[in-house]
Amino acid sequence: MIDNLINRITELNSPIVVGLDPTISMVPERIVKKSREEYKCPLNAVSKALVKFNREIIDAVYDIVPAVKPQIAMYERFGNAGVKAYIETINYAKEKGLIIIGDIKRGDIASTAEAYASHIGGVEVFGDKFDPWQEDFVTLNPYLGGDSITPFTDICETQEKGLFILVKTSNAGSGDLQDLELKSGLSVYEHMADMVSSWGKNLIGKHGYSKVGAVVGATHPAQGQNLRNRMPNTFFLVPGYGAQGGSGKDLQGFFDTNGIGCIVNSSRGITAAWQKDSCFGENNVGDAAREAVIAMKKDLNENLK
Amino acid sequence: MIDNLINRITELNSPIVVGLDPTISMVPERIVKKSREEYKCPLNAVSKALVKFNREIIDAVYDIVPAVKPQIAMYERFGNAGVKAYIETINYAKEKGLIIIGDIKRGDIASTAEAYASHIGGVEVFGDKFDPWQEDFVTLNPYLGGDSITPFTDICETQEKGLFILVKTSNAGSGDLQDLELKSGLSVYEHMADMVSSWGKNLIGKHGYSKVGAVVGATHPAQGQNLRNRMPNTFFLVPGYGAQGGSGKDLQGFFDTNGIGCIVNSSRGITAAWQKDSCFGENNVGDAAREAVIAMKKDLNENLK
Repeated sequence: MIDNLINRITELNSPIVVGLDPTISMVPERIVKKSREEYKCPLNAVSKALVKFNREIIDAVYDIVPAVKPQIAMYERFGNAGVKAYIETINYAKEKGLIIIGDIKRGDIASTAEAYASHIGGVEVFGDKFDPWQEDFVTLNPYLGGDSITPFTDICETQEKGLFILVKTSNAGSGDLQDLELKSGLSVYEHMADMVSSWGKNLIGKHGYSKVGAVVGATHPAQGQNLRNRMPNTFFLVPGYGAQGGSGKDLQGFFDTNGIGCIVNSSRGITAAWQKDSCFGENNVGDAAREAVIAMKKDLNENLK
Repeated sequence: MIDNLINRITELNSPIVVGLDPTISMVPERIVKKSREEYKCPLNAVSKALVKFNREIIDAVYDIVPAVKPQIAMYERFGNAGVKAYIETINYAKEKGLIIIGDIKRGDIASTAEAYASHIGGVEVFGDKFDPWQEDFVTLNPYLGGDSITPFTDICETQEKGLFILVKTSNAGSGDLQDLELKSGLSVYEHMADMVSSWGKNLIGKHGYSKVGAVVGATHPAQGQNLRNRMPNTFFLVPGYGAQGGSGKDLQGFFDTNGIGCIVNSSRGITAAWQKDSCFGENNVGDAAREAVIAMKKDLNENLK
């Protein structure tokens, strides 16, 4: 799947993933009103409104980006109805040919991690296989160490799936643990980078990148460059562009000399673009999202030259 | 909620939480058969079978343990149907008066962590409050640092809720990151212990323990004793007893001098007890679970003297 992802990035000249992290405040009133008429339970109404909103975004961008990244927390907050909306969003995006990066940041001891691995590996029930989640990639949290990752890399050995493991996250608090200096002289995030590289070393595809990728925040340009040098076979999922403060200029060091090696996420900067420009109104959710993607593509590609 | 939990532990003389982490292999055929007759979709049938199994366990132990800890991964593996079963299990356990520790191990950047915090804080939709998850405590992963925890501690400031944050986990791979030595001379898990203590320092209840607890694995007796001394106001959720290898003797150092300070989890050792003793058959799921709890209680209390 990492090869497919890189192929699509190159074909579209678009190292961009659209983060589908909607809040109700970014959904137009016309969608909310209709959903509340159709679904009397407020948890169902809000969840269905998110799906309708996501479909408008997907319809507007599916031919200019390779992937979407739904953030499960934004759905899970509404309980079971929300989880259903997360899955419905994924199903629709897959119908449109998009690659799915499920931003789930799971991590647990081996026997439990095996259960979480159904996110990419599916599950066998009474002798038949099911794929309830439909994700192509998932994000993982490595605090529990190697045996929490193995059930996922095992699936990557035989299936076209992939992982992005947290190394250096985009938030201010990421330094609390990740920047600590170890006795070895490395920082925690550098040590984690070395572990992620080793977990992925037997899973390298035809473009030289492993199915086991890393999450590296756009808000840390120097660390990003350091990590690109440190882990030459590891593809980066880069959050923190746009609303969180990162720009194309900050990302020059994240890409390799061929201009590949990253997929950059923007969420609110694309999905809530209709609220930020007086040219657009609530009927232009898709138009505004498409313009935001085109502007982001320009910003990234200019800075790669 | 930490005060309620300690009160119940003391009343029942039972520092035990029953882990509800079922796999289909531990569910009796009579339950599976009936569920498959009732639900044609295999994902629904398996999920409903887990709920029925959990209800038999809960019915057998609710008056001798203070809490249950469903592990969401074991439900999430079946997609949306499984998540529904997780919530149904929690609702039933709450009806029986049990305290719920949702083993979710979530962690994300602040804005996303706010969404996950609905697990304990509920969610407002169209002006009304909902509590779709119903958990009293949740487990959290601290790899992203302090700002990933704040949305949860904010809720603990005003509501009777609590947290258990991963410090030293029970699995073999926990050492990969958690045991690394920092330049400061502390290990990563010790540094994390200090952060967890500081996050909880304004949330200490009448028994001297904070609403912000820590996960400390039973499989590491020396580290557990070290952590008890290091974080005197932090209550421990202790996985790894029983099936993972920990015993009452290993846990002496985890408790304080008053014999409190921990709640010890056992999952398969209780829920699958009916399969491990030829005295029991598939009609004795509850009997076997109750006997396993009583034996565990004896083991823990003998070693506390």
